[in-house]
Amino acid sequence: MLLKEIVMKKMWLTALGLFAVLSGYAQAQDEVAIKKIFDTELTQGKVYSLLEYLTTSIGPRLSGSPGAAAGVEWGRHAMEMEGLDSVWLQPVMVPHWVRGQKEIARIINSKKMGTVDVNVCALGGSIGTGPSGVVGNVIEVTSFDDLKRLGTKNITGKLVFFNRPMDPTFIHTFHAYGAAVDQRVQGASQAAKYGATGVIVRSMSLGNEDYPHTGSVVYDTTVTKIPAVAISTKHADLLSKLLKEDKGVQFYIETHSEILDDVPSFNVVGEIKGSEYADEIILVGGHLDSWDLAQGAQDDGAGCVQSLEVLRLLNTIGYKPKRTIRAVLFMNEENGLRGALEYARLAGLKKEKHIAAIESDDGGFTPRGFSMEATPDIRTKVKSWANLLEPYGLTEFNGEGGGADVGPLKPQGATIFEFLPDSQRYFRYHHTKEDTFDKVDKRELELGAASMTALVYLIDRYGLK
Amino acid sequence: MLLKEIVMKKMWLTALGLFAVLSGYAQAQDEVAIKKIFDTELTQGKVYSLLEYLTTSIGPRLSGSPGAAAGVEWGRHAMEMEGLDSVWLQPVMVPHWVRGQKEIARIINSKKMGTVDVNVCALGGSIGTGPSGVVGNVIEVTSFDDLKRLGTKNITGKLVFFNRPMDPTFIHTFHAYGAAVDQRVQGASQAAKYGATGVIVRSMSLGNEDYPHTGSVVYDTTVTKIPAVAISTKHADLLSKLLKEDKGVQFYIETHSEILDDVPSFNVVGEIKGSEYADEIILVGGHLDSWDLAQGAQDDGAGCVQSLEVLRLLNTIGYKPKRTIRAVLFMNEENGLRGALEYARLAGLKKEKHIAAIESDDGGFTPRGFSMEATPDIRTKVKSWANLLEPYGLTEFNGEGGGADVGPLKPQGATIFEFLPDSQRYFRYHHTKEDTFDKVDKRELELGAASMTALVYLIDRYGLK
Repeated sequence: MLLKEIVMKKMWLTALGLFAVLSGYAQAQDEVAIKKIFDTELTQGKVYSLLEYLTTSIGPRLSGSPGAAAGVEWGRHAMEMEGLDSVWLQPVMVPHWVRGQKEIARIINSKKMGTVDVNVCALGGSIGTGPSGVVGNVIEVTSFDDLKRLGTKNITGKLVFFNRPMDPTFIHTFHAYGAAVDQRVQGASQAAKYGATGVIVRSMSLGNEDYPHTGSVVYDTTVTKIPAVAISTKHADLLSKLLKEDKGVQFYIETHSEILDDVPSFNVVGEIKGSEYADEIILVGGHLDSWDLAQGAQDDGAGCVQSLEVLRLLNTIGYKPKRTIRAVLFMNEENGLRGALEYARLAGLKKEKHIAAIESDDGGFTPRGFSMEATPDIRTKVKSWANLLEPYGLTEFNGEGGGADVGPLKPQGATIFEFLPDSQRYFRYHHTKEDTFDKVDKRELELGAASMTALVYLIDRYGLK
Repeated sequence: MLLKEIVMKKMWLTALGLFAVLSGYAQAQDEVAIKKIFDTELTQGKVYSLLEYLTTSIGPRLSGSPGAAAGVEWGRHAMEMEGLDSVWLQPVMVPHWVRGQKEIARIINSKKMGTVDVNVCALGGSIGTGPSGVVGNVIEVTSFDDLKRLGTKNITGKLVFFNRPMDPTFIHTFHAYGAAVDQRVQGASQAAKYGATGVIVRSMSLGNEDYPHTGSVVYDTTVTKIPAVAISTKHADLLSKLLKEDKGVQFYIETHSEILDDVPSFNVVGEIKGSEYADEIILVGGHLDSWDLAQGAQDDGAGCVQSLEVLRLLNTIGYKPKRTIRAVLFMNEENGLRGALEYARLAGLKKEKHIAAIESDDGGFTPRGFSMEATPDIRTKVKSWANLLEPYGLTEFNGEGGGADVGPLKPQGATIFEFLPDSQRYFRYHHTKEDTFDKVDKRELELGAASMTALVYLIDRYGLK
């Protein structure tokens, strides 16, 4: 071996050793930091008490409602109390739909049972029937293809009953939701094309329940708007059974919902300024609005308080981020996405550079991982952190998709993420009166907040490129 | 290349190709079978309705109680209804401890608060104070080392208050339990050595609760038995606070528990005979007994019905196991382990060959994986199945440990496993009046049953060697 080669080899080995030491050191430092994040949250976390206030003192927060306005004020105040570098409101006009007095629905003319009161609720955004209600024969379908096959002659003047259940064999329950929700969102306009006078949609649920699940309906502007209600899964099964025995069964619905003029509202934004790359933003967020039937605890009070907690937790452990860490409580995810669209529009105008945007909108359950919309290189980089996150139960990094509110930032180059908690119980509560504070477990919620903080820490420290 | 070499290489490549095809085929076949297991359970599972009956119609099942006897009859009947090849009862004598009339406990002599009623329960196996109760000054400790340091002069004639909380920074909550439960199990005898007249133990919980958690106390035969109660975590915090302000605070406990003579009971056993290696047994089990305060839904009704469901599910999908698959509902896990010891003793006498024994006793929550006590080779083999199990959320295979009831089979060569569900909510319910049917989620329970079935399927198909 020549002397030069020996020297080179020695240098190379030294460099390699140095790298190993440094990389080992960085790994150990990250382990310590992430353990501190989790330990701090599990011993001094405030996320659960924040949620208690938001859900039990403020309550439902439908866009345009007094509750939503109270939620905005709460969010601003909560951020100011944490001593962030800046806190501000972003004005945005939002839809204003009101449910009005409680819905009435009955199965009538059943040879077997006569008249049966059933549990329904108007779908969000639906027009009301008014006090005279809508009554008619019912035709049960499970798909838009069924409508096509039946055609105008079989549908005109009837109420269409969409009764395709969510498929329980999907392990991730959001996939079952995705495969069934077309009935709720587009069912009314699809049925109206064939002359239906109203639609009754099986609640989006995997359970056998007494209560209905609301959620948005989107009307096609080219067809007549018809009233749309969700029916509890128990009553959907009953209606279907009665229809099989007796085609003469009729249905009465009376809803008093109204679509009013848009009203002003706000996104709530707060941030810790980055010390080195202040122009690079890592966003964490949830949506502040909820449906009107419940407290919006899992959907999405949990995501809001977890996002606040990320910033509080970084402050608490004394971590000074290199990049700007921003929490956003988006308004109007449920029925318009107006807050998210306005946020992205302004970000574009201001040429803000969001390198990552992480939403928590799948509930405050035990963490399983993160899904993302990322280039293969970025996904590989995120997955290289898996060994740091696995001790905390975070093992799923292969899923596609970011949250709805962070979606509009993707075209601006942001890698978008969604926090993935365990999905098994989510659809017991989703969009129902059952979505209340007592359904959230303190430790599960805390672990989610710490998981998001850990990801933010790693992105801040190493970037995504 | 010589002709011989060419031929050899060709043969080798053919073999390799054949292996790849076969191995690909086996993999695909396993994927299909495991999907069928999960699909069947999630659409036609009976595990939830089995649990409903066991918990709401039968209820608490403390060893020696009428409920335990009813549980045995239920278990036998449930197995017989499934058309197993054999169902039988294994007689075993079990301890018979009774709580008697409800416990009374008061903080007295508090300068600040006077007398305060507090929530306690006698620990299982504890002697009672009888109607005259025990009253005394209280000395708070957090460890047995504290007792040693304080010594007889500071402890004699007093009630010792063990108040070391479960550590919330453990991510797996059973580790926090393991690090705190010495106070409950051995605290009474440890304190009695220094002349204590009774012990008050902080409930084994991570929450801030009104209700106490029972659980077993084990007396050291060489020291005097003294009464032992668990106090709710809220009242433990109150007592600790009052003691800090005022050393004169006293405590009164009155318990009516009694240790009666052992009584006869049974393990319930059922099996499907193996078609090829009938002498090789794969055991699945849970424990049929519960504490007396609740329905024993998560602990361990869930494990019992999941074990039954494994056999039912294999029958339902038409799988004919090569090995014998046996379900065991063990009696007396909570306060004696007599059922498990008798089962293992008989297995030894009969020279039965248990290749694997899987217990479910960590609740019916969302599956995370399996822990095991296995040789490195066997663990490697089990982990080679991870790709088949990950789609169902089963990602944890590194943990050490099998269930308490299957532990006695290990010296006979069984690889012992414990089903690992998510642990975050378990200690809200454990050994309390809150451990009721409504705390169990249907899908979570079903996924657990299917996970156990999938592991049994893989062990049956490929063995563990």
